[in-house]
Amino acid sequence: MRTPTDPAAPGDYDLRHHGDTEVGGGLIDLAVNVRTGTPPPWLAERIAASLAGLAAYPDGRAARRAVAVRHGRPDPEVLLTAGAAEAFVLLARALTPRRAVVVHPQFTEPEAALRDAGHAVERVLLSPSDGFRLDPALVPEQADLVVVGNPTNPTSVLHPAALLRRLARPGRTLVVDEAFMDAVPGERESLAGERDLPGLLVLRSLTKTWGLAGLRIGYVLGAPEPVAALERAQPLWAVSTPALAAAGACMEPAALAEADRAARTVAADRAYLVDRLRESGGPAGLEVAGDAPQAPFLLLRLPGAAQVRLRLRESGYAVRRADTFPGLGPDWLRIAVRDPLTTDGFVAALAGATAGHPVR
Amino acid sequence: MRTPTDPAAPGDYDLRHHGDTEVGGGLIDLAVNVRTGTPPPWLAERIAASLAGLAAYPDGRAARRAVAVRHGRPDPEVLLTAGAAEAFVLLARALTPRRAVVVHPQFTEPEAALRDAGHAVERVLLSPSDGFRLDPALVPEQADLVVVGNPTNPTSVLHPAALLRRLARPGRTLVVDEAFMDAVPGERESLAGERDLPGLLVLRSLTKTWGLAGLRIGYVLGAPEPVAALERAQPLWAVSTPALAAAGACMEPAALAEADRAARTVAADRAYLVDRLRESGGPAGLEVAGDAPQAPFLLLRLPGAAQVRLRLRESGYAVRRADTFPGLGPDWLRIAVRDPLTTDGFVAALAGATAGHPVR
Repeated sequence: MRTPTDPAAPGDYDLRHHGDTEVGGGLIDLAVNVRTGTPPPWLAERIAASLAGLAAYPDGRAARRAVAVRHGRPDPEVLLTAGAAEAFVLLARALTPRRAVVVHPQFTEPEAALRDAGHAVERVLLSPSDGFRLDPALVPEQADLVVVGNPTNPTSVLHPAALLRRLARPGRTLVVDEAFMDAVPGERESLAGERDLPGLLVLRSLTKTWGLAGLRIGYVLGAPEPVAALERAQPLWAVSTPALAAAGACMEPAALAEADRAARTVAADRAYLVDRLRESGGPAGLEVAGDAPQAPFLLLRLPGAAQVRLRLRESGYAVRRADTFPGLGPDWLRIAVRDPLTTDGFVAALAGATAGHPVR
Repeated sequence: MRTPTDPAAPGDYDLRHHGDTEVGGGLIDLAVNVRTGTPPPWLAERIAASLAGLAAYPDGRAARRAVAVRHGRPDPEVLLTAGAAEAFVLLARALTPRRAVVVHPQFTEPEAALRDAGHAVERVLLSPSDGFRLDPALVPEQADLVVVGNPTNPTSVLHPAALLRRLARPGRTLVVDEAFMDAVPGERESLAGERDLPGLLVLRSLTKTWGLAGLRIGYVLGAPEPVAALERAQPLWAVSTPALAAAGACMEPAALAEADRAARTVAADRAYLVDRLRESGGPAGLEVAGDAPQAPFLLLRLPGAAQVRLRLRESGYAVRRADTFPGLGPDWLRIAVRDPLTTDGFVAALAGATAGHPVR
């Protein structure tokens, strides 16, 4: 299994750096965007119950059906994958783009997977000066593959669905990575149910809201033809029986309601975190990226962020460096939204770290 | 997730047919080569215990270490994969063979994966007339990729390691699929510990002996360079946390001893099955393939096998059609080795089925 720190792309940014390498050692984790206290006991029980069937090869039909029903699509418009990470590799392998564009700053695996598969990748960089707002005019007309995240990791910006629709056209594959969309109350601006937009592929993950990063489960939604092409590029029995059980369980109405409640809690916790960071007494020069962050994490701009991150580690807090995201630099950090108590502790540590010393 | 019945290769043989589609409906399963009564409770417990860590991304380092130690190799000579099926896809994606050869009859996924990746595949057909014995001279000298199974699915033939070594040479990748080697007592003829043979890659599976078909876990052994190339083609976090826990557990000395005991039981059960099939009163015209079958399954030649298979289903027994394996035809069936009681029932049903009627 690949370790997540392998360099994969040429030069500049380490696209293969991920937050999971920044945690451990007893640090309070604000580096990884997985919801704390997950998976919930009822889901853990469903997964455990599936272990009784491990001797049989995985049969993904029921889970596929469940995902299809949840998004109001027929089964052939769904492909279950071993996490969103597998979906990016399948895309890179199945598609043969002449001009691939990734809208950055954004999760780096799509670009890394495309490069690994031998494709050139152009970067469209959104600008911090206007809150990383999506401007469809920045995407070259000739691009036949466009990848964009919504809400976007690491900027926490939720692009309006209407803007995303303007990126779609015949002859172009538009990939919208909605790995964090289930953390947005009501999943507003989601294109998961959109069936008429040409070339649209929507990627979803069950990793973050449900705490299943270790299980590897996500899915792709799109027209039957491109979905079948991705499926042909997928290894046989790619998704394990426990992962299939989890996918089915997470599509049930009670689970969807629970996810929406969790999303509302995240929104409240995020508002508290933003307030604390922006209030008088917050670190000098700190900016929260985006006009209205909508994901379960925030992107921060802070002079000397690299040093601050190390001091925070000494104070017991792991935050994610954000200088590995194309378009960002050493002044950026990403932090996960946590409960108010954790936020209070973190903000105090941050005040100490920006004053030049760790707080214990 | 791909269903296992998709046609993937041109014409002739349905390389994407697998035994798991032949079972179900209350049939006694002789179609799938997974050991019955597995996973054992101690292993199921270890896997269940790993579920507590699902919220974290998988960390494969400890499992990789355990596999490396078990085979007397350094860590960079090991790659954990989501089942052997993923390994075939990685091979097809990472290698650029000019002349790829698969030795048949053999598990069909390697050829299917190579074809899916756009490679032409030549078939070397071993002959039933000499017991599907490996003749290295049949493999074209110019072949720069050679895939062979040992022991071979579906023929149950165990090729001598000395013969396999003669297939290796500089400039050629030699892939030995040892997915069933842990069912051979002492793993004699295994090349898993062989570190000096140029271009050798050994594939192993934990699926069959340990009943983990639903979990997706296997591994590749070879020189650091080709292993690293496969790793680069692998999605991030490809192997799930429960699968990693299982891999680690199955490498422990007690597990290896248990696997060897199971292999000896399989050998005794197979000898009983062969005796019952060959004894006077066995179906007329039935032949057991190979001089000395060594895998947990047998390949049978039986006139009218296609009809017999359907009659066996009516009698409650699922056996695997073998006409989907290149080199074989409608007269062939594959059956899993089971305990003597199951064998007795099966042999009686087979006698009825070959006499033209199902036995209930």
